Amino acid sequence: MSKSLQEVSADYRRELTDNILPFWLANGLDPVHGGVYTCLDRDGSLMDSTKSVWFQGRFGYIAAAAYRLIESRPEYLAASRSCIDFIEAHCIDPVDGRMYFEVTADGRPLRKRRYVFSECFAAIAMSEYSLASGDKSYAEKALSLFKDIRRFISTEGFMPPKYLPTQPAIGHSITMILINTASRIREAIADPVLDQQIDESIATLKLFMHPEFEALLETVTPQGELIDTCAGRTINPGHCIETAWFLLEEARYRGNDPELTQMALTILDWSWKWGWDEEFGGIINFRDCKGLPCQDYAQDMKFWWPQTEAVIANLYAYQATGNEKYLQRFHQTNDWMLAHFRDPDYPEWYGYLHRDGTVAQPAKGNLFKGPFHIPRMLIKVPTLLK
Amino acid sequence: MSKSLQEVSADYRRELTDNILPFWLANGLDPVHGGVYTCLDRDGSLMDSTKSVWFQGRFGYIAAAAYRLIESRPEYLAASRSCIDFIEAHCIDPVDGRMYFEVTADGRPLRKRRYVFSECFAAIAMSEYSLASGDKSYAEKALSLFKDIRRFISTEGFMPPKYLPTQPAIGHSITMILINTASRIREAIADPVLDQQIDESIATLKLFMHPEFEALLETVTPQGELIDTCAGRTINPGHCIETAWFLLEEARYRGNDPELTQMALTILDWSWKWGWDEEFGGIINFRDCKGLPCQDYAQDMKFWWPQTEAVIANLYAYQATGNEKYLQRFHQTNDWMLAHFRDPDYPEWYGYLHRDGTVAQPAKGNLFKGPFHIPRMLIKVPTLLK
Repeated sequence: MSKSLQEVSADYRRELTDNILPFWLANGLDPVHGGVYTCLDRDGSLMDSTKSVWFQGRFGYIAAAAYRLIESRPEYLAASRSCIDFIEAHCIDPVDGRMYFEVTADGRPLRKRRYVFSECFAAIAMSEYSLASGDKSYAEKALSLFKDIRRFISTEGFMPPKYLPTQPAIGHSITMILINTASRIREAIADPVLDQQIDESIATLKLFMHPEFEALLETVTPQGELIDTCAGRTINPGHCIETAWFLLEEARYRGNDPELTQMALTILDWSWKWGWDEEFGGIINFRDCKGLPCQDYAQDMKFWWPQTEAVIANLYAYQATGNEKYLQRFHQTNDWMLAHFRDPDYPEWYGYLHRDGTVAQPAKGNLFKGPFHIPRMLIKVPTLLK
Repeated sequence: MSKSLQEVSADYRRELTDNILPFWLANGLDPVHGGVYTCLDRDGSLMDSTKSVWFQGRFGYIAAAAYRLIESRPEYLAASRSCIDFIEAHCIDPVDGRMYFEVTADGRPLRKRRYVFSECFAAIAMSEYSLASGDKSYAEKALSLFKDIRRFISTEGFMPPKYLPTQPAIGHSITMILINTASRIREAIADPVLDQQIDESIATLKLFMHPEFEALLETVTPQGELIDTCAGRTINPGHCIETAWFLLEEARYRGNDPELTQMALTILDWSWKWGWDEEFGGIINFRDCKGLPCQDYAQDMKFWWPQTEAVIANLYAYQATGNEKYLQRFHQTNDWMLAHFRDPDYPEWYGYLHRDGTVAQPAKGNLFKGPFHIPRMLIKVPTLLK
């Protein structure tokens, strides 16, 4: 017998304020140089002082959102500001205005990559900080950064491409992240470019939807055709499920737009079928749309974040439709997630499980896992259920 | 009761000529454009026609070595030449002379990376083809390419670096691969630069050896210091074991050089201790030299190639020392490998197992697994036991 939604909501708030946020504030936040460390071992001890630029923005966003939406503890707002200050002081390449990917503890640049995710996460941190603090100048900064991002990705040759032009391709990641980035900034400041981006991204997303496989693919040709390679056939169900709730959020913003809701539910239903592991439970990492063996080494593992996306997406879908199947999936995912990812002995959750739900390695963070997906879910679910 | 070494040797020859090579000649070799496909499913069917440039060189090498060292079947020599012709026709960027990483079936370039591994594998293919065919011009080509490789990696700014200069680092991979590349070319053609490279690489390898951890690390500072990050602490036992037999081969070439033999045995003994999984058997992918959780997603998996390296290295060590512990480890690795990696229903071996030895995904090849490590072992072991 699953708990009521109100009980889940109360549990989530407690998990956020009594477990997850204290873990990162105590062990992650850097009192010396500012910003946040994420490479923390099971007990919170620092394993690597490399700072992820993504996570300066991500925790900058999360800490401000917790302050605004859950509980106005001053340390949350201060943590958000510390991450944003660290970004502005250390994470921007003065040569071209683009952000780095990883920097040292004191902010010297280690690596720059050919993507704009660092910039996207910085922008949502700034807009959320603006909402939380009331300081409008951060909304302006977020908007200005967003316009830079659009310039970076549309200026031919500005970012060195990973692949040569022989096989032109477009990617799901950047398409979907820009919906969320624009939506977050729009809460703090209005600008036509934000709505324009969301419209463009929704139109582009349709190119990734392949009804013949009942799948949203990660990479297609610019015309939306299948690229029939291992990479081109790859389905990342958790990623698609995340996109589904970005769209459900937008549909709700548009007064429950029926067409957009239907598009989101189609993506959610398709991706649930590919992603939910009937044998062991949980959302699996990757599938091949033709059922061939996936070549990513982690293809059959269970990572933390696809589970959190499935919790949020199914709650959105239940609220949009009243269909009990989504409520059932919400509980099914939540139950499996809580049973397998929580650490009985230390705070924060594991990130990396084998397919059968056993722990693959027990660290609580690295350059890709940190205070983002779990606290975002723990904030989002109570907010939706308020 | 393990088989005798002579029985193992006969089994290996049969496995090579009756299983592994026929699989790749029938399913991998491209009769239309030349060269070899490696993205083959469990039964040999083509999953992806992208061609790995590494594998044009790797199979070019293997097919010629099988011809020269195991059995002079004309189709082996023809396969080697087909791969080399494909490289020369399609895999070299005319702009700077560097090779691509992946190309289409008909040889249009898809991706170029900032490493010289494509070039190294091409060079060993050419030198082995020269030995097998008697055509000296391929040895000259190999030597010329080797000199290009040295120029590519020593010319500041020629290859865009992955990391910024904040934390200078050197890598085990390029250091060790150049020993093998130079040794293979030296069999076909003499040049002082080849011996010079081997001497340089051996001197550099010592910087990666950390007695305080009894480990050879993958990345250290140019002075050989530990970089105390997750990446800097990473041990790749299979990789180190491969280096150990490259050194044992060189020590034998130098008339059983005692100092070099001892260096190799030290690396082998250290890496065996980190790599052999006492709980489930097999050589594990990665360890952290301080015992912290490894952050590579495949850290506790069992890949095919570390097992094959351990078989070769322990045989070399047994022949160098007569110490029964190496013979025992040779059989222990061979028994576990044969029991878990062979496919009872189709030819070729699996590549990717979970830690417990169950199959993670059953494809026989991709851009990283193809006809190289397994046939190299199946050629090397009978050659050593002749």
